[in-house]
Formats: sequence, C-alpha cells, structure tokens
Amino acid sequence: MSESDRPLDDDGFLLARESADEARPDDRIDDERMDEENTLKKEYVEAVEQALEDGDTKAVYELVEPLHPADIADLLELFEREQRYQLAAAITDLMTSEVVAELNDYVREDMMEALPPEAVAQIVDQLETDDAVQLIEDLDEANQRAILAEVEMEDRIAIQSALSYPEETAGRLMSRDFVAVPEHLTVGDLIDFLRDGRDLPDDFYEIFVVDEKHHPVGTCALSWVLRAPRTIPLADVMKRDQTLIPVLLDQEEVGLMFQKYNLISAAVIDENDRLVGQMTVDDVVHIISEEAGEDALLMSGAGEGDINEPIREAYSARVRWLVANLGTALVASVIIALFGAAIEKLVALAVLMPIVASIGGNAGTQTMAVTVRAIATNQLTRSNTRRILLREMRVAVLNGMTIAVLVGLATGVIFTPTLGAVIALAMVINVVTAGFAGVMVPVAFERLDQDPAVASSVFVTMITDSMGFFAFLGLAVASGAVG
Amino acid sequence: MSESDRPLDDDGFLLARESADEARPDDRIDDERMDEENTLKKEYVEAVEQALEDGDTKAVYELVEPLHPADIADLLELFEREQRYQLAAAITDLMTSEVVAELNDYVREDMMEALPPEAVAQIVDQLETDDAVQLIEDLDEANQRAILAEVEMEDRIAIQSALSYPEETAGRLMSRDFVAVPEHLTVGDLIDFLRDGRDLPDDFYEIFVVDEKHHPVGTCALSWVLRAPRTIPLADVMKRDQTLIPVLLDQEEVGLMFQKYNLISAAVIDENDRLVGQMTVDDVVHIISEEAGEDALLMSGAGEGDINEPIREAYSARVRWLVANLGTALVASVIIALFGAAIEKLVALAVLMPIVASIGGNAGTQTMAVTVRAIATNQLTRSNTRRILLREMRVAVLNGMTIAVLVGLATGVIFTPTLGAVIALAMVINVVTAGFAGVMVPVAFERLDQDPAVASSVFVTMITDSMGFFAFLGLAVASGAVG
Repeated sequence: MSESDRPLDDDGFLLARESADEARPDDRIDDERMDEENTLKKEYVEAVEQALEDGDTKAVYELVEPLHPADIADLLELFEREQRYQLAAAITDLMTSEVVAELNDYVREDMMEALPPEAVAQIVDQLETDDAVQLIEDLDEANQRAILAEVEMEDRIAIQSALSYPEETAGRLMSRDFVAVPEHLTVGDLIDFLRDGRDLPDDFYEIFVVDEKHHPVGTCALSWVLRAPRTIPLADVMKRDQTLIPVLLDQEEVGLMFQKYNLISAAVIDENDRLVGQMTVDDVVHIISEEAGEDALLMSGAGEGDINEPIREAYSARVRWLVANLGTALVASVIIALFGAAIEKLVALAVLMPIVASIGGNAGTQTMAVTVRAIATNQLTRSNTRRILLREMRVAVLNGMTIAVLVGLATGVIFTPTLGAVIALAMVINVVTAGFAGVMVPVAFERLDQDPAVASSVFVTMITDSMGFFAFLGLAVASGAVG
Repeated sequence: MSESDRPLDDDGFLLARESADEARPDDRIDDERMDEENTLKKEYVEAVEQALEDGDTKAVYELVEPLHPADIADLLELFEREQRYQLAAAITDLMTSEVVAELNDYVREDMMEALPPEAVAQIVDQLETDDAVQLIEDLDEANQRAILAEVEMEDRIAIQSALSYPEETAGRLMSRDFVAVPEHLTVGDLIDFLRDGRDLPDDFYEIFVVDEKHHPVGTCALSWVLRAPRTIPLADVMKRDQTLIPVLLDQEEVGLMFQKYNLISAAVIDENDRLVGQMTVDDVVHIISEEAGEDALLMSGAGEGDINEPIREAYSARVRWLVANLGTALVASVIIALFGAAIEKLVALAVLMPIVASIGGNAGTQTMAVTVRAIATNQLTRSNTRRILLREMRVAVLNGMTIAVLVGLATGVIFTPTLGAVIALAMVINVVTAGFAGVMVPVAFERLDQDPAVASSVFVTMITDSMGFFAFLGLAVASGAVG
C-alpha cells in the first residue's frame, strides 16, 4: 500500500522523480491541454475522442501520457461509458492507482464492476487503505468478498477493520498509516528513527507521541521537529493540547473540527482512547466540499445529484420528491377549491393568486437556505435559536411590507382598491409566515435528528402555498371584494 | 506577526506549552462545555450570560478561560451585540489574535469598528499577514488608513501589498511567510538553516526550492527531508513537478486545485513566475466550505446569507430577488389573464393550474441544482454539456411521465377524462421544459461569465411557471375540455 511515484532506493531514502518531469517544470499550468479554469480543453478532449474512434491507440497514449493522474480521471469522467472502457484499455499502464483514487465514485464503481476481481484486487493492493476502502465499500457484497480474497493479508485486515465501522464515520475514513513514538525519545532519536524507517507512510505532517498504553499524549508538527536541536526530549517540543477525533464521529463533524481548529492532520482514538489512526486534511477537504455542496441538492429534492449518477438512481431520487410535492400541491388545490364560487364570480382572483404563493415560496426558501446553512456550520445552536428567529422575522416584515406596497398599488390601479388592499395584506401575512416556517421547519427537523436540508423544502413550500392562497382568497371574500 | 502560544526560548527553539494544558490533556473532548456536535452547550452559554448580567467579571473569566480560542469566537457570535462588548471587556487578555482571526467576518467587523484604531493596530500586529488582511479589508477606507498608520512598517508593507490584489484572489489570500532555499543546499544544510532560523513562519509543510531569479524549481515535503540523510543534495530529494498558483487566480479555482491535486500547501507565483507567497490548506478549507455552501444561498436569492449579516444588508439582498420574482410572477399572471374566460366557465382550471406550475418549478430546481453544482466543481465543461443535457432530458421524460399518470388518473376520476388527459400532457411538457431550462439557463450564465447560481433560479421558475399555465390552460381550451 504505497504510492509508486516516489521511489525509495536501497538505503530506504527518497530519490528525485525522474521521467519526463524535468522537461516540464510546471505542467500544472498547461496551456496546451488545460483552459484557464484548469479543466481539459474541448479541443483536446475531442482530439482524444477522434483518436479513440480511429482506433489509433498510440496517438491516444501520446495525448494522455503528459496528464496528471487527477486530470486522467477527469478525462475518463467526461466520456460516455463505452468510450471510457476503450480509453482505459488504450492507456492501461497510465491507469495507476492514483487515477482510480481520483475517479468520481459512480464512474469508479462502474469501471470496477467491469473488471475481474483479481484485477481490482491488484489495484486495491496499490492503493492507500483509505482509498481502497472507498473503492470497495460501494461494490455489492459478493463482489467485495471476491476481491478481498485476492488482496494481500495485511491490507485485507486493514480494509475489513475499516468496513467494520459505519459509513461516513472517522473509523471508515481514517488512514491506518501514521507515525507514533514514545515520549522518552529525543529529537535526534526521532530523526534517526525516521531515516531508518521503512514502514512509514508516504506523507505525514505530525508525529504522534503516545504512552505505553498507546494513548496519545502529545503531537509534534514536523516543522517544530526540524527546528529543534537533536538533544531536546520530544516531551519538551510536543504540544500536549491536541484535537482527538473519536473513531465513531460523523464525517460532517470531522470536517467542522478541521475547519474550526485549522488542522492539517489529527489523531483518531477508539473507545478506550487508544490511537488507532489519523485523518489528514487532504481527505477531509473532499468531505467538506461534499457536505457543504450537498445541501443545495438536498433542498431541491435532487438527492445526491451527481451528474455521473446512473439515470435510474437519479430518476428514483427525484421522482420521490416530485410525488411528495404533488401531495403538498394538492393541499393548495383543496384550498382553492373551497373558494371556487368566489373565483367564478371574480376571475381576477385566479389571475392574482399565484403571485402571493410564488413570492411567499421564494421568501420561505431564502430563509430556509440561510437557516440550513447556519445549522450545517454549527452557527445556529439551541443557544441562539430565539435570537435568530427574531432576526429573521424582522427581515420578513421588511420584505413583506416592501412587496405588499408594490403589489397592492399595482393591483389597486389595475383592478380595484379593495383588491389592492386584500393582496397587500395577504402578502404581508404570507411573507411573515414564510420567514417563520423558513426557520422553524429546519430547526424542528434538526431537533428530531433529521437532516434539515432533506425534507424542509417540501414542508416550507406547502405552508407558503397554502397560506398564500388561503389568506388571499379568504381576505377577498371577507372584505367583500368579490361583490 | 507570530502566534504567541508556542514560545521560543533564548536559543530560538520551541518549548512545550505549559499553563493549565497539562491538567486537561484532551480538552477538545470537553463534556462539561461542549455537546456531542462540538458546539457550546446551552447551559454553559446561559451560565456565561447570567454571570455577565450579574456583572460578575471574575465568574465570566473563569467560565471562559478553559475554552479554545475558536470556541471563544463561537461564544461571542452566539451573543447579542451588546453582550458581545460586555463579554470582550470581561475577558480582555483572553481576546487574543487567534480569537479575532476565528470570528465571523460580520461580527469581527462590527467589533473592530467599536475599537479605536490603535487598539485594532495592536491586534493586527499580532496576526499573521493573511488574517490581518481579512480583518482590514472589510473596514471602510478611512478606518483602514487610520489603522495602517499605527501598524509596524514591515507588516504595513505586507498588508498593503496584499490589498493591492483584487479581492478573492490568491494574492489577497496568500501568506507572505514561507521557506525558500537555493537548490545547491544539502539536507543537512537545510536542517541547520531551519534550526538557526529566527524568521521562519510558525507552521510550514514544505520547503520551496528556488533558482537565483527566485523562480520555484522544486519542492520538498518536510516528511521527505526528515527521512533523507544529511549529505544528500536537496536537488535529489525535491519533487520538480509542483502545482503553482498564479497570484491573480480566483479563490474558487484555488480551492478546486487544492482538492484536485490533494495539496497541503502550494507556491504562489507572480506574473514573472517568481515565488511571492504560499497558500496553505487550512486557509483554503474555509474557502472551499464557503464556495460550496454559498450556491444554495445564491440559488434561493438570499445573497451571502450569513446569520450574522446586519439586518439592513440581509433585507436589501433578499428583497431584490423578491422584486425580481414579482416580475416573473407577473408574466405568469398575464398568461392566466389570457384565459380568464375559460377559467370563468370552468373553475376547475383555477383549482388545478397551480399543480402543473408547482411540479414544473420543483423539477426545474432539481435539475438546476445538479447543473450548478457540476459547473462549480468543474465536472460540467464544454466537452460534456451535450451529453449531460441528453442525460437530464431522459430523467425529465421519466419524471414527467410518472407524474402525468398519477395526476391524469386522479383528475380524470374527480373531474372529466378530457381534463385528465389535458393535465397529464401539460405535466409532461412542463417537466421536460423544466429539465431543459434547468441545464441550459445555468450553462448560458456560465458562458456569459456570470455566476450560474445567482440568477438562474428566477429564470428557471419564470419559464416553468409560464409554460405550466400556458400548456395547461391552452390545452384545456384547444381540447374542448372547457365546453
């Protein structure tokens, strides 16, 4: 389980990377293939596509060879399924474990399922444990077993241990490779140990110091070790105050801890406070991006919403929410039906009523989006819910009155002053209701331990739609505007 | 500009942190004050509040003293404005630069504006340059000038240099403290240099190797330096292939680069390819979280949508979109008005028409959320737009037909079979239109160099509302369902 791009020589230390790198000192600014947003240029992608169609394997290889593994992964994702297989076949020895690790989950799953278990096992052996777990966890159980049977024993044990923790917890995501040393070492001892060490992770950013029971007692950033004289004991260089991550902590909380305490890496401890792994920020970065980005998708009712999701899964995730929305639209329809006679008499009501509902829905969505984000970032807690609700109500009153004046005047001029007053009042009522629901619905779901992003939208829209139609039509009848 | 929590002794190396830390080896798992989500417990916050109300400064101090600076920042954010000033006054010597750096932008701005420029300048002197820039950039210009006049010259020059780059670019955000050494050094030379060095940044994760023109030629992770024998030249340990960040690159692209290439830190280069700074992942993590999270807020029309945003700003950000939405709702109303006579004859149309619009709006929002996210993560590019559009159309057809069957049957039973057929067909048309608009509107904004999250929502809703009413009412009239 080690990356192959930084070879160790016989004495166990690192050699410079050779290969074509020297000719391209900074190919990460690669104007030939990458555009200014660092995505692959359309012309380049089309050239690869053409070479594939022509069956010109050599041309494909030459085009793809200079790419960084992460960009090869991007290239594969850009293609249709069949083209992907063709491309992978044309560049087999460029399809390194780094490329596989960088692939989108859906694309990787699909490509792995097309390979025999032995081939997948070979890739797994090359991957770091945490990447190997990511690759395996999405496959079905029979497939998992077949692959694990082919994997080297040490790796298999590590992967099975990871799989024994629930999905999206630190135990599943952590790396089992880390550097832990006893407290009595000096800086010099440590450096000698590192120079000798053959079993070290490829990259590490801090040294964990543990006691005889393997409990973490401190941590040394590598930059401190490098700055300290050899004779100093580690106990004098290390920081005793460190952030420890419980092995069962949810990935979202792990991400928030890394953000809050500006961590590069952190020790993961089991139920008995023993050091069992580490999380490093390069993995956490993906979690943070995913968790922060998914709320927009969840609120829209698009589920995971990845463009590489199989169509069947995308359909089933979305249609559920459309059907749920049908239910809530029905509530609105029933309310309208109650006022059928009034609408028959005054068709202006039918013309105006969607405005009240639409603005209310938008105001509710605004407040809900702010609330969901504040909950997700731990900014909105039990301690300040009341203050935030009051704040949002004040914004809602201001918004409601502004819109009410605009709509009321226009309606008063085009239709009748009474109808203008009715729609203005309905608008204030609905926008204020929207503000209240926009805060309280996500807060209620959060207290019930539900993801506030998932279900809030349907409820908030139901409330604003129903209230909009009811307030407007009800006030119209009550005011005698219908005549 | 150095953090105060890791003191250097007279010989310039690091000493262990002392203070109360030793008594609490892992106060980051702090059951007394923190709940399981690592937020401050309500009871604890209330205890601080009570002590503040009682004017018991000593009790306040004792309660707050054990907190991590990031948690002190959280505590300040949880309070009302007036309480914040009281709290800050009660714990002045705990109000370290770390606390200020961790504060929410709005809260920090408000608190800094309440302080005299000399006091702010003192805080600025304590901060790392990048944090100091963040603090200063939001203040008004007169205030900025007054503060900068009080800041030490070296820091002032660094801050002014940062402010000379546009907001949200690498030049504004980068740290000007980094370690760069010439290529001819050996590992031993480097370690000696680091042990002597007094002008080093507090934390660093790689050593940049530069040529005589200060162009980066390679990079050494600290873990490689620690593993290599002293006699090896750096040129043999360093990696020549490194990711370089242009100084004018937008922060969103910086975040994507760190994610794509799994970076911990990276060199920032100016227009002449000279090394001018570094970005480290702990700062980039905040950018990634912000950029990923803001799309949900922008799509809802809630602007920046922070719960600490002043009410006036929140009002003005949101009301603009409500007014814009009023415009689009008007389009829908005009379409309904065209069919006034039909509605008068058959009031069932008024009852049913919001269903078509509502489902269409939801389907459009789903597709739009997926598209916006794919654009933001560089997954959707010019190379695969056609493929993704086709994919989304297939999902839309499946969704549209499912909903059409449900609504058509129900309407056929409750009202008339003709009306059932009409609403079913209108539903398919609108959901497919929604899918098309949900992809093409954000893609069009992206091509026009506009943020696809900002304006797409209003357009997509306008299209689905109008199409929903038009298709349903139009088909009803054309089919003779109105009678």
